[in-house]
Amino acid sequence: MSTAVVVGNPKPGSRTLAAALHVGRELSGAEPELVVDLATLGPALLDWSSAEVADLVERVGSADLVVVATPTYKGTYTGLLKLFLDRFAAGTGLRGVAIPVMLGASEAHALAPELSLRPVLAELGATVPGRGLFVIDTDHENPAAYADWLDATRPVVTTLLTARGVAV
Amino acid sequence: MSTAVVVGNPKPGSRTLAAALHVGRELSGAEPELVVDLATLGPALLDWSSAEVADLVERVGSADLVVVATPTYKGTYTGLLKLFLDRFAAGTGLRGVAIPVMLGASEAHALAPELSLRPVLAELGATVPGRGLFVIDTDHENPAAYADWLDATRPVVTTLLTARGVAV
Amino acid sequence: MSTAVVVGNPKPGSRTLAAALHVGRELSGAEPELVVDLATLGPALLDWSSAEVADLVERVGSADLVVVATPTYKGTYTGLLKLFLDRFAAGTGLRGVAIPVMLGASEAHALAPELSLRPVLAELGATVPGRGLFVIDTDHENPAAYADWLDATRPVVTTLLTARGVAV
Amino acid sequence: MSTAVVVGNPKPGSRTLAAALHVGRELSGAEPELVVDLATLGPALLDWSSAEVADLVERVGSADLVVVATPTYKGTYTGLLKLFLDRFAAGTGLRGVAIPVMLGASEAHALAPELSLRPVLAELGATVPGRGLFVIDTDHENPAAYADWLDATRPVVTTLLTARGVAV
Repeated sequence: MSTAVVVGNPKPGSRTLAAALHVGRELSGAEPELVVDLATLGPALLDWSSAEVADLVERVGSADLVVVATPTYKGTYTGLLKLFLDRFAAGTGLRGVAIPVMLGASEAHALAPELSLRPVLAELGATVPGRGLFVIDTDHENPAAYADWLDATRPVVTTLLTARGVAV
Repeated sequence: MSTAVVVGNPKPGSRTLAAALHVGRELSGAEPELVVDLATLGPALLDWSSAEVADLVERVGSADLVVVATPTYKGTYTGLLKLFLDRFAAGTGLRGVAIPVMLGASEAHALAPELSLRPVLAELGATVPGRGLFVIDTDHENPAAYADWLDATRPVVTTLLTARGVAV
Repeated sequence: MSTAVVVGNPKPGSRTLAAALHVGRELSGAEPELVVDLATLGPALLDWSSAEVADLVERVGSADLVVVATPTYKGTYTGLLKLFLDRFAAGTGLRGVAIPVMLGASEAHALAPELSLRPVLAELGATVPGRGLFVIDTDHENPAAYADWLDATRPVVTTLLTARGVAV
Repeated sequence: MSTAVVVGNPKPGSRTLAAALHVGRELSGAEPELVVDLATLGPALLDWSSAEVADLVERVGSADLVVVATPTYKGTYTGLLKLFLDRFAAGTGLRGVAIPVMLGASEAHALAPELSLRPVLAELGATVPGRGLFVIDTDHENPAAYADWLDATRPVVTTLLTARGVAV
């Protein structure tokens, strides 16, 4: 099985990255093969002819499991994340199972994973079987912040990945 | 396998019902065991102590597959449908796979299944693996209006239902 | 100036009603002329030929200021409220200034007034100039829960009402 | 009165720009003082210490009227636009009246201005009194594509701008 993690925090090595890696490991049982920390890409993200970005789009698109994580900016995902997602083809860009993850300073934006990030991933063709995950950013290292969501989401994700013919 | 169809059109025997039955048959391969045409329930829907409604909530909640269909009123699902969905427990009310279906007069409200109906079903605990379906109401008897969506959605639904231990 | 308050709580005389009355008084400087506590209407709400409901729709639709308040059920407005709003004509049903108000048990649904209730009021033709208000239900009698929002919203509402030729 | 136009199309000189200029002129009666065609900014947009971007944020934030226009990518605004909007302070970043405008290839995404772009502008503190405008991109030079919306929106915008003490 291949797992990719995509992180839309403008700061490299962020808490968002840590949260995404945790979710990826918990759902796949292994380290992700591909980690795209968008903050490290720089101006290539604005260059629609960049081969580097095109290659990442292809690899993320073909992953069996993709964790897409972002901090909450202005009540929704960051522009940095959307800049990358805009490169994927509608309907066929994401061909695996996708997991929306958002971190935020308070519960006030807890609806954002379902109401804003998930619809974008679905538009790209991803199978998004579970609810989006919202984590208070100061809780990002606390396993309890993920536990209930993992209990609800893991069985469905495992079933779908197994059906794709990949070992979980 | 048990399949339920819930229809939120204020007119009984509506095109919405026909569309929901078509989707249910196509995804399950059989007639649904339970059809809840909400227009036929009457004032019991406003009575929070109604045993009839409580029984329907329980039966729909335990179905393996639930097709939830509504016309588009004011850009979203009908109040009639939401009145029924308000009776389900958050997180545990819908324990199977749910399929959001909306009919509308034009494409202008095509985002509504993903942005408004799906989040409610997810809030009730349902597994909503595919994209919501939007059908132009005058096309509701045209199999072509469902074909692409069925091709994309059926494999995921079948996988999840099989994993629930039910034959499809 | 005419002010109407519409309350979508299934319980009559609710905290939602109290919050809506507070908002209406603060924005208009007077008691509302019309209070529609939907819980008291009963089965007429399900009867599309009800003259009583049609009369309320007409009176609410022509009010200069309408406060539309609902508890948060399943992450959004109640079915009871939507049942009433479904009776208004798209584009022309609400001809005044509308104020979306939602009460909820926690901040987790704080995006709902903007992302779910406001779009419905806009679809009905209302001018919805300010942000939707979200109030934690246990704070509903605390003026501080409304103060910042009132400071931001009152000037715009007053300007629009004055332009309608009504004294504020 | 000062009017700003912000355009989030990755191609400079786009149809989105033409549509935004048309809306700006129609609502203000004059050419906009400031046109921010984000495609021309380049990597400065990714540099959170850019003085050029900070200056644009300040000037757009203090404009009396801001038209914010974007093509529809993946069912919502572009990442390029959000990248710029992420630089504005929540609650106080936009201190004038804002107008959401989206262009799209078909009616299928017509709900996006209300359900995705408007909430971001409201989060930044803007007064967003009218409905978001959705224009089919091939109609962008056709005045009829704007007429009804302008008839509905212009009076409210004029009232609010006049109240800000600016001549319209």
